[in-house]
Amino acid sequence: MYLTKSFIPILKNNPSEAKIKSHQLMLRVGMIKQSSAGIYSWLPLGFKVMKKIEKIVREEQNRIGVQEILMPTIQSSEIWKESGRYEDYGEEMLRIKDRQGREMLYGPTNEELVTDIFRTSVKSYKSLPQLLYHIQWKFRDEVRPRFGIMRCREFYMKDAYSFDISDEEALFSYNKFFLSYLRTFRRLSLTAIPMAADTGPIGGNLSHEFIILADTGESKIFTDKDIFKVSSDNTKVEKKSLDELRKEYEKFYAVTDEKFNKKEFENQVPEENRLITKGIEVGHIFYFGDKYSKPMGASVDLPGGKKDFVKMGSYGVGVSRLVGAIIEAKYDNQNEVMKWPISVAPFDISLIPMNNKNDNSALEKANNINNEFIKNDIEAIIDDTDENFSSKIKKMNLIGAPFQIIIGKKTEGDLLEFKEIGLETKRIKLEEVIKIIKKEKAKN
Amino acid sequence: MYLTKSFIPILKNNPSEAKIKSHQLMLRVGMIKQSSAGIYSWLPLGFKVMKKIEKIVREEQNRIGVQEILMPTIQSSEIWKESGRYEDYGEEMLRIKDRQGREMLYGPTNEELVTDIFRTSVKSYKSLPQLLYHIQWKFRDEVRPRFGIMRCREFYMKDAYSFDISDEEALFSYNKFFLSYLRTFRRLSLTAIPMAADTGPIGGNLSHEFIILADTGESKIFTDKDIFKVSSDNTKVEKKSLDELRKEYEKFYAVTDEKFNKKEFENQVPEENRLITKGIEVGHIFYFGDKYSKPMGASVDLPGGKKDFVKMGSYGVGVSRLVGAIIEAKYDNQNEVMKWPISVAPFDISLIPMNNKNDNSALEKANNINNEFIKNDIEAIIDDTDENFSSKIKKMNLIGAPFQIIIGKKTEGDLLEFKEIGLETKRIKLEEVIKIIKKEKAKN
Repeated sequence: MYLTKSFIPILKNNPSEAKIKSHQLMLRVGMIKQSSAGIYSWLPLGFKVMKKIEKIVREEQNRIGVQEILMPTIQSSEIWKESGRYEDYGEEMLRIKDRQGREMLYGPTNEELVTDIFRTSVKSYKSLPQLLYHIQWKFRDEVRPRFGIMRCREFYMKDAYSFDISDEEALFSYNKFFLSYLRTFRRLSLTAIPMAADTGPIGGNLSHEFIILADTGESKIFTDKDIFKVSSDNTKVEKKSLDELRKEYEKFYAVTDEKFNKKEFENQVPEENRLITKGIEVGHIFYFGDKYSKPMGASVDLPGGKKDFVKMGSYGVGVSRLVGAIIEAKYDNQNEVMKWPISVAPFDISLIPMNNKNDNSALEKANNINNEFIKNDIEAIIDDTDENFSSKIKKMNLIGAPFQIIIGKKTEGDLLEFKEIGLETKRIKLEEVIKIIKKEKAKN
Repeated sequence: MYLTKSFIPILKNNPSEAKIKSHQLMLRVGMIKQSSAGIYSWLPLGFKVMKKIEKIVREEQNRIGVQEILMPTIQSSEIWKESGRYEDYGEEMLRIKDRQGREMLYGPTNEELVTDIFRTSVKSYKSLPQLLYHIQWKFRDEVRPRFGIMRCREFYMKDAYSFDISDEEALFSYNKFFLSYLRTFRRLSLTAIPMAADTGPIGGNLSHEFIILADTGESKIFTDKDIFKVSSDNTKVEKKSLDELRKEYEKFYAVTDEKFNKKEFENQVPEENRLITKGIEVGHIFYFGDKYSKPMGASVDLPGGKKDFVKMGSYGVGVSRLVGAIIEAKYDNQNEVMKWPISVAPFDISLIPMNNKNDNSALEKANNINNEFIKNDIEAIIDDTDENFSSKIKKMNLIGAPFQIIIGKKTEGDLLEFKEIGLETKRIKLEEVIKIIKKEKAKN
């Protein structure tokens, strides 16, 4: 795609209203545009990244056998009155009256609605477990929305729900999501630490937050460096194997400031291993038994003829938030260099031809290279503007395709000036460039 | 996928509240579930179909060079006051006050918001044309929502917007969408007729509705049978070729009752060619020049140094509505047989093993066949229930995978009982089944 034809409105300087680096970069390169307080439009560059994240999230849900549905954004207040959360939720819930005067709301989460779907659809333990997810817009009327899409009002989230016959089975479901989330974040090139967490307004008695490390994170975290050695590579989607993975993690102290206890930290973590840093929450899982199924009457027939309320859990990943989280983790704002993980990069590579007036040969060369890329399913952005070299490089470093080819006077014969952002420039042939990029993409 | 593991809650009989066949079928086989008046959740079966439609719509937008963005559902009233539509829109607009008392609304359409994005991003004629689309939930607070997802309140729609420097260029954009829509509907196995239409609340002076034929349609249509002979197969995305296509269509009388004129109809259409039938609107395109760009100040610098307001059009396809429209066009409700076009079918084929108690051999055979299907990217649903033959066939005829294999006592050796819904059963080898299905899928 040509930069001049794309809808990528780039700003010369960082916008003054943005206080954190993801917000700065996203406005700077036109990934998003604010439409009102805490509400954003996603322009093509941001949209592409978000869609690629969504795809990975979806694939990892499907992989553990969760079925996709789609619940609406607007819900009736009735079911929230059944669960008892209608009053509790407070002003963060966007409450609406429709033209008939009915009390509606914009869903901030979907425990009630999914429980309603379940109770009218499933009657017998034989149909359990049921794992359902959807990826849908949510609204939370934050009193002070800020930090761009990191703390906004309308946001895009994957939320999943599990329905089981017993605590034991429900924990098996819980642990499947535990693994699934580790896999998801790894495919996004993020190292996420699962941390025991408070359950907050969702309720329940077991909960983990998944936190990625980032200097600009909102949560302070306290952990043992050795937690990074835990690997889920060999974990299978089986009760025992999943249980062992959870136990491996739980050997290590890892909490946010909410649950921090100095004494415990110092007792459990040898001094040289203590890591105190900041992080960003990108996922949160909950087990809450019959907290919703009981008041809402979601029960199933058991083997002996009795009935029991189903045991439920819920599992959230902030899809739009992950766009910002990846920037917070990867963006070098001192040098103004972003390098997207290739799994979610808006483009695989930038082609930077140095055009001279009256001489289109560099651009033509870029077009020819791009034709080879298209055949190999490699997506490039071509900077076809008349700007000078340093200005082009600056822009492409912000857009953040992980690879670059500079086509200038030095480009002679078969050897291209190829660069992986952050590494040295190499002079290699096009076939080798294609091989390198395809290999990187295949890793995912 | 096993039917017993899927979340497909099937009803024994047609639900009494459903008056048209798409609504009946969608509730009957658990494609959707109503959550409140005119608001539905999409369960896995319905969700899969809608996602496949969305993918085709997206591919055909990308093919004519439209760039995808995503605007939020909740908009500020400010921009609607700028365009002058805030009061005009009436009670169909869902109006909301947020916790700060700001007037917000759930977007029923996006002309204002996209114009706002354009005016802050694009300054020069050099960046034109710009074609942008998004696929997002909309809300229209219908006074009497009915017919399931055909006339509901929260619906999923693709809406695109074009920005051009002159009327001539804008018509070129308009015609690109004209072609794109014909291609889109054909890939959904629908014959859509473009009809000159009123512009309604969107405004402007040129508009076409795309109507598909269906006995249960809401619009009465009057046309010339020969209009079905017009083909866009050889149309190119070039001004002249697109113009000729429009002219080919405009040779024939084709209007809905809104624009019907008996005299004109009888004068222009020879008696033997007159077709009076019913149809469903599945797409609508508008050209409205500077109706929004002028009041909202969306102008660009022209070559000579002057400025002018951009010329805009908008282009909508009802993605969720198409699920119902396809059912209205394809479902034989007398015989209770649905056959989805393979391009959007929830499954490519049903495997119907006739299980006997204490004998799993039919199911095992189904599993083996399914393993071959998986290798060939063919998606099957396996009816692993203990129900009898006629009950299984009945269900699978409603779920509507276009092909079926029955695995019973007669299945011996290599020959399978294979059936394309609506055609005779054949006894053929698995390799041939795979060949047939792959060929059908490749057509799309």
